[in-house]
Amino acid sequence: VFTRGEAAALVTERAWLQAMLDFEAALARACARAGLVPPEAAEEIASACSADHFDPAALARGGASAGNPAVPLVAALRAQLPDSVAGHVHRGATSQDVIDTAAMLVARRVIAPILDDAARAGGACARLASEHRETVMLGRTLLQQAVPITFGLKAAGWLAGIERSRRELARVGEHELALQFGGAAGTVAALGDRGVAVTAELARELGLARPALPWHGERSRPARLASALAGLGGAAGKAARDVVLLAQNEVDEVRLGGSGGSSAMPHKRNPVSAVAVLACADRLPGLLATMHSSLIGEHERAVGAWHAEWETLTDMLRLTGSAVAWAAEMLESLEVDPGRMRANLEGAGDLVMAESVTAALSDKVGGREARRIVDQAVQTPSFREALVQTALLTPDELDRALSPDAYLGSAQAFIDAALAEYGAP
Amino acid sequence: VFTRGEAAALVTERAWLQAMLDFEAALARACARAGLVPPEAAEEIASACSADHFDPAALARGGASAGNPAVPLVAALRAQLPDSVAGHVHRGATSQDVIDTAAMLVARRVIAPILDDAARAGGACARLASEHRETVMLGRTLLQQAVPITFGLKAAGWLAGIERSRRELARVGEHELALQFGGAAGTVAALGDRGVAVTAELARELGLARPALPWHGERSRPARLASALAGLGGAAGKAARDVVLLAQNEVDEVRLGGSGGSSAMPHKRNPVSAVAVLACADRLPGLLATMHSSLIGEHERAVGAWHAEWETLTDMLRLTGSAVAWAAEMLESLEVDPGRMRANLEGAGDLVMAESVTAALSDKVGGREARRIVDQAVQTPSFREALVQTALLTPDELDRALSPDAYLGSAQAFIDAALAEYGAP
Amino acid sequence: VFTRGEAAALVTERAWLQAMLDFEAALARACARAGLVPPEAAEEIASACSADHFDPAALARGGASAGNPAVPLVAALRAQLPDSVAGHVHRGATSQDVIDTAAMLVARRVIAPILDDAARAGGACARLASEHRETVMLGRTLLQQAVPITFGLKAAGWLAGIERSRRELARVGEHELALQFGGAAGTVAALGDRGVAVTAELARELGLARPALPWHGERSRPARLASALAGLGGAAGKAARDVVLLAQNEVDEVRLGGSGGSSAMPHKRNPVSAVAVLACADRLPGLLATMHSSLIGEHERAVGAWHAEWETLTDMLRLTGSAVAWAAEMLESLEVDPGRMRANLEGAGDLVMAESVTAALSDKVGGREARRIVDQAVQTPSFREALVQTALLTPDELDRALSPDAYLGSAQAFIDAALAEYGAP
Amino acid sequence: VFTRGEAAALVTERAWLQAMLDFEAALARACARAGLVPPEAAEEIASACSADHFDPAALARGGASAGNPAVPLVAALRAQLPDSVAGHVHRGATSQDVIDTAAMLVARRVIAPILDDAARAGGACARLASEHRETVMLGRTLLQQAVPITFGLKAAGWLAGIERSRRELARVGEHELALQFGGAAGTVAALGDRGVAVTAELARELGLARPALPWHGERSRPARLASALAGLGGAAGKAARDVVLLAQNEVDEVRLGGSGGSSAMPHKRNPVSAVAVLACADRLPGLLATMHSSLIGEHERAVGAWHAEWETLTDMLRLTGSAVAWAAEMLESLEVDPGRMRANLEGAGDLVMAESVTAALSDKVGGREARRIVDQAVQTPSFREALVQTALLTPDELDRALSPDAYLGSAQAFIDAALAEYGAP
Repeated sequence: VFTRGEAAALVTERAWLQAMLDFEAALARACARAGLVPPEAAEEIASACSADHFDPAALARGGASAGNPAVPLVAALRAQLPDSVAGHVHRGATSQDVIDTAAMLVARRVIAPILDDAARAGGACARLASEHRETVMLGRTLLQQAVPITFGLKAAGWLAGIERSRRELARVGEHELALQFGGAAGTVAALGDRGVAVTAELARELGLARPALPWHGERSRPARLASALAGLGGAAGKAARDVVLLAQNEVDEVRLGGSGGSSAMPHKRNPVSAVAVLACADRLPGLLATMHSSLIGEHERAVGAWHAEWETLTDMLRLTGSAVAWAAEMLESLEVDPGRMRANLEGAGDLVMAESVTAALSDKVGGREARRIVDQAVQTPSFREALVQTALLTPDELDRALSPDAYLGSAQAFIDAALAEYGAP
Repeated sequence: VFTRGEAAALVTERAWLQAMLDFEAALARACARAGLVPPEAAEEIASACSADHFDPAALARGGASAGNPAVPLVAALRAQLPDSVAGHVHRGATSQDVIDTAAMLVARRVIAPILDDAARAGGACARLASEHRETVMLGRTLLQQAVPITFGLKAAGWLAGIERSRRELARVGEHELALQFGGAAGTVAALGDRGVAVTAELARELGLARPALPWHGERSRPARLASALAGLGGAAGKAARDVVLLAQNEVDEVRLGGSGGSSAMPHKRNPVSAVAVLACADRLPGLLATMHSSLIGEHERAVGAWHAEWETLTDMLRLTGSAVAWAAEMLESLEVDPGRMRANLEGAGDLVMAESVTAALSDKVGGREARRIVDQAVQTPSFREALVQTALLTPDELDRALSPDAYLGSAQAFIDAALAEYGAP
Repeated sequence: VFTRGEAAALVTERAWLQAMLDFEAALARACARAGLVPPEAAEEIASACSADHFDPAALARGGASAGNPAVPLVAALRAQLPDSVAGHVHRGATSQDVIDTAAMLVARRVIAPILDDAARAGGACARLASEHRETVMLGRTLLQQAVPITFGLKAAGWLAGIERSRRELARVGEHELALQFGGAAGTVAALGDRGVAVTAELARELGLARPALPWHGERSRPARLASALAGLGGAAGKAARDVVLLAQNEVDEVRLGGSGGSSAMPHKRNPVSAVAVLACADRLPGLLATMHSSLIGEHERAVGAWHAEWETLTDMLRLTGSAVAWAAEMLESLEVDPGRMRANLEGAGDLVMAESVTAALSDKVGGREARRIVDQAVQTPSFREALVQTALLTPDELDRALSPDAYLGSAQAFIDAALAEYGAP
Repeated sequence: VFTRGEAAALVTERAWLQAMLDFEAALARACARAGLVPPEAAEEIASACSADHFDPAALARGGASAGNPAVPLVAALRAQLPDSVAGHVHRGATSQDVIDTAAMLVARRVIAPILDDAARAGGACARLASEHRETVMLGRTLLQQAVPITFGLKAAGWLAGIERSRRELARVGEHELALQFGGAAGTVAALGDRGVAVTAELARELGLARPALPWHGERSRPARLASALAGLGGAAGKAARDVVLLAQNEVDEVRLGGSGGSSAMPHKRNPVSAVAVLACADRLPGLLATMHSSLIGEHERAVGAWHAEWETLTDMLRLTGSAVAWAAEMLESLEVDPGRMRANLEGAGDLVMAESVTAALSDKVGGREARRIVDQAVQTPSFREALVQTALLTPDELDRALSPDAYLGSAQAFIDAALAEYGAP
């Protein structure tokens, strides 16, 4: 239901099918360049490698009895070609080569729009951070009002989370997406002494990194991809969590554009985009655990652990993509209400300035005594009045100590630093 | 790829859609019985509640913008009815009522074939336990040869696991699948003083348990269902793990019917059904974690945690169903090779009888001295010769102490007990 | 840090040590009754089986090199006894028998106080449900104000969650805690034909259920225990989540006794007990996944999966115990503010009564038209005024339709049902 | 039980305590340099910041009622100092600053020995890869014999996994361990306009990275650390999984030094170090899920999600450290048996050369016909004889096609590449 954004369209069964075919096409060409397959045969194979020519349902049935979808796909591909060409299909490769490499291709294709949507989300945060750098509001810790912050600082925190995670996914996308090509058990022996040459051509053809050696049994690449996805989904989720809390009617400091109706309550405006972000992001940690369990497999191909990766990774790509697409919508349509933020802050009263007063008093009587005085004053009916009674601060000093706007510390500097480091995705 | 069995067909998008419509149909009739809706209108609503009349793709789009699929479904259902009838649709209900109750209906429908397949798997184990009750083989702990057992005892262990988990799922299916009906926030206030009456009729109409109060915020039911599914999938996985280990060429004590070919190696027979069981079962723990995380949601409807349940539960039903369907195939087609079991046992030599010798010697010289003698004898080139030298056992006693068939302890009694308790699923 | 309640003291390293010794003591006695060990030797063994006599640090070191703590414990126990008695220690048993049975004993001892604390928490919910059955407040879905409920109904929901989970843990504690006794590989062969007899005596001696056959490779018992613990911790977490949300300063409908100070902000009262519940409960789903992964182990004793259970189960017992202990404190000290609840409801205005008005109008003009009118009215500046303009409801009818107290539906009936079913833990 | 290596000693309660005190000491000095605290007072504070001066049990009790351990620690630290100095303790900081920064310090200290042990493990893999580069053995996929590989190639795969994960942890250790310093809600307002200056000094004093802005609500750092730890533990686990499979008596291609005894079976040599690696590694995925769930917290400090990180991260550091320490022992003491590898390969017969024969035949009759011939030949009683009958290969060609040593493809090139890229940790 919560599938959103371009990413979803790139992780379909058909997308997987095409990626597997892209592997076979590239393999034929790489073998041709290494002199193992006649160039015309390679081109004939390549031109047959279009998902349109295949019946996904039949392949799925065949995949179930073969134990993986590559076996029936190779058979179907060969069946479409003349005998003289069919023999050159899948040269030197094993099913795992097809599927692992296809996973990397699918991931690369999906990561692009995910990064775009993450950049949109980050850009929206940067604008909020910049526009609302001086919009004073309550900071809240453990869901209790703490001390004043600005909404810009909060948005800068979202920006840092989303942008750091976007960069991490970009880094993983650049360095961890590698060709898998090892043949039956990692030696590519069926290619004789041309294994390395074909590997190099194949990686080039597909635009994937060429690993030092096949990684059929060394699963750090899918696990790291999964971690990067879970990280980005979590960063989107953090912003959404804050948004739904700020959008509570009792707080009402933000509102969401495009909020959804209710099937029962005509007046209700549900924060749909934020809900959707969380619906997706909440599923990622459990899926991440599965991807990491698969690090520990048997020998040259794991029994079950490898197979468990396929749908799990697909789900993580789809869910993370949807989470950032929804987050971008949420953040771009966010209506911020500075007046209500100010009103809530004033409603909180002088008590949220207790730390500020302690700091001001510390200059006069030392930290220990300052804390003692403030601890007593917060127990009285009027915090301000109790402080006036102490006569330790001048009226001006007291006003200043009780002014939220004068107690924002390094908020501006932090916003500036965050915008400088993360601001232009 | 590894979807298998009837269960998979019962958790499709269409199955969910029909279950949601079943809720609306039953609600209309329940309201009619409570005098809130004219009986003819209720029947007109009910007859419109067929998944065939709806466009799943359009509903999915509508669900995304509304935040759940019930909103567009109710709208589409009303659109199909005359005005005078449309107003009686979804009376008193909220989206969560539709979706949670549909989840329970989907679960109930899927559990039936899952239990059937589990019973088939259990039945196959019971036959193996019975047939091979005296088929001696090596017991193996920490993947090291330990002492003799029988294959029947091993199969009885699988039986206990599968049958205990089958019964647990049956128990959960019977007691934990309950109607959810609370209206906007759990009071069913839109039905005035008829909420309880309609609830009772609705539960009866749908054949679901009637809870003491609505459980929109109390998620123990889906969590328990998830635990029962993960337990059954794990029991199937345990048998599959043992089977793939026994099917290793070096062990070769069992073979699988219908094993799959390889895309690279024509001689290879892959244990496809066992691989498929593990491919499904390995994914359940991570999904279970997500279902339990959803126990902790916000107020009268959780933000994200509730939504994360839908696909996760669907996946768990499908994966557990597939795991047991594959396990039934695996166990029913299992070829056991008693000759090879015997050969492996003999190949292990007298050392696996060291515990047996210790026990025999203990009767003569006490446990401590017996262990000392055996500890020394296992270091010598010939364990048997070293024992002969001690002259503590007569040749007959020694032969008996070194005979695997005479050292099976309570294996028969345990098999009998397991068959008595679990044998007739 | 958040360890709380009696449970924590019962899962220490020492508690495990004593439980392992209890197994050895009971085994000696069971063997004596079966005529395998002289009664005096059994008593001498039993009297040596006190944790005080052992050095946990030395055992830990020994456990690391042996691969489990039972090996050095048995050696240390034998070393404390005369030769003639030492030989009777650990008769027929293997390390897994000691450790699995000890886990069951530890669990049984810890479950008792966990159930007590859960009963306290449930009792507090029942009192809140009863006292505040008519305390009207806002129901909130997706963190948005929905329709009126009563605080008693909310507390009844917590009650159902905690009490259902308490009963489930009690059920698991009663039926799933079983003796593990199988010897080297599940046949208890070292006891000859006395395996079954000793098993029966041993189960009786320890007060544990006697399984049909040993469960060294069939791990449903620890997995179910883990599910029951995660379920109870989640139920406590649900109440805590609601409490921290209600305790937000902007909502302020409840306050917590014994709230904690802040190291920086003297005025701040942190909801410590609720935070602590969540700190514990949030860790349970991940640990539960590990316990379920361990269902799938190798042959007669798993490699790693078994060992991963020990600390994980210990953590789950401790965390669940702490969660319910904190939850009991939280709920018993909860200060409910009906005035603030009423004020928040009034502050929400007439719009939260839109569903109520729709219901009232439906009786006049049908559901469809009623929804149309209300949809329009909610867009106008004054919902009430717009409704007056329609002249479809008399002033009395309108007042009633806009009165929260008249729109509580079946709340009382549901509270009564919950108290009847769950009210007296 | 399986705690091992230096890492464990660096994650104790005392290590955490000292790290928290190191924060307070560094904060005092940083404030002194910024002119906020008299230098002598700072030094007096710093010299009191030794864990020896504090009672961990009392702090734990205090931490429970305060909701975190920093509150009682700051109080205890102040209590040890004269009034005039005590007031300068914890200047501008909040509890989360102390705890998050302490977590980073603990992590940094533990990572060093973890990296050392990982380097040892990697070094042992590199030696095995180099020494056994030509030690021919069976490759095994899905636990079935596939085609020949060399043990050196297998070890090179372990090397790649361990070394890639070691470098990732080193990278995370270098870039992701950052100071957390934000004061009550992220503005460090209590330090007035000196927040940034103190932050810079504090980061320098502690040798931690200085983030653009405080990360109290942006939890990518602990989540990434957790991913890197789970990745390294998984890489160690992969090697251990292969080792226990190779050490099965029926395979017997490797043996472990220092293997452990059994409490029941004197002859048995358990692969303790490999078991211990798996015991630790199997727990990491579930813990990783918890760390990623904590990405999504509330506002400026999460309720529960933050607190759930502390013990979880500590466990992950300890378990990963133990896993690599055990893995280093396992790999350094690994006895490889090339003779048995050869014998197993020969025992497998000519059939494992079917792919090789297909490749040889393809040059003669094309791939399709080659596969057809081989498919038939594998069904006959003697694969070799059937091939002789075809007369397509000369006797020399057939011998070569059936020779494992001539069918190792690019194994040497892959080993070389792996050693070049990962060989010198």
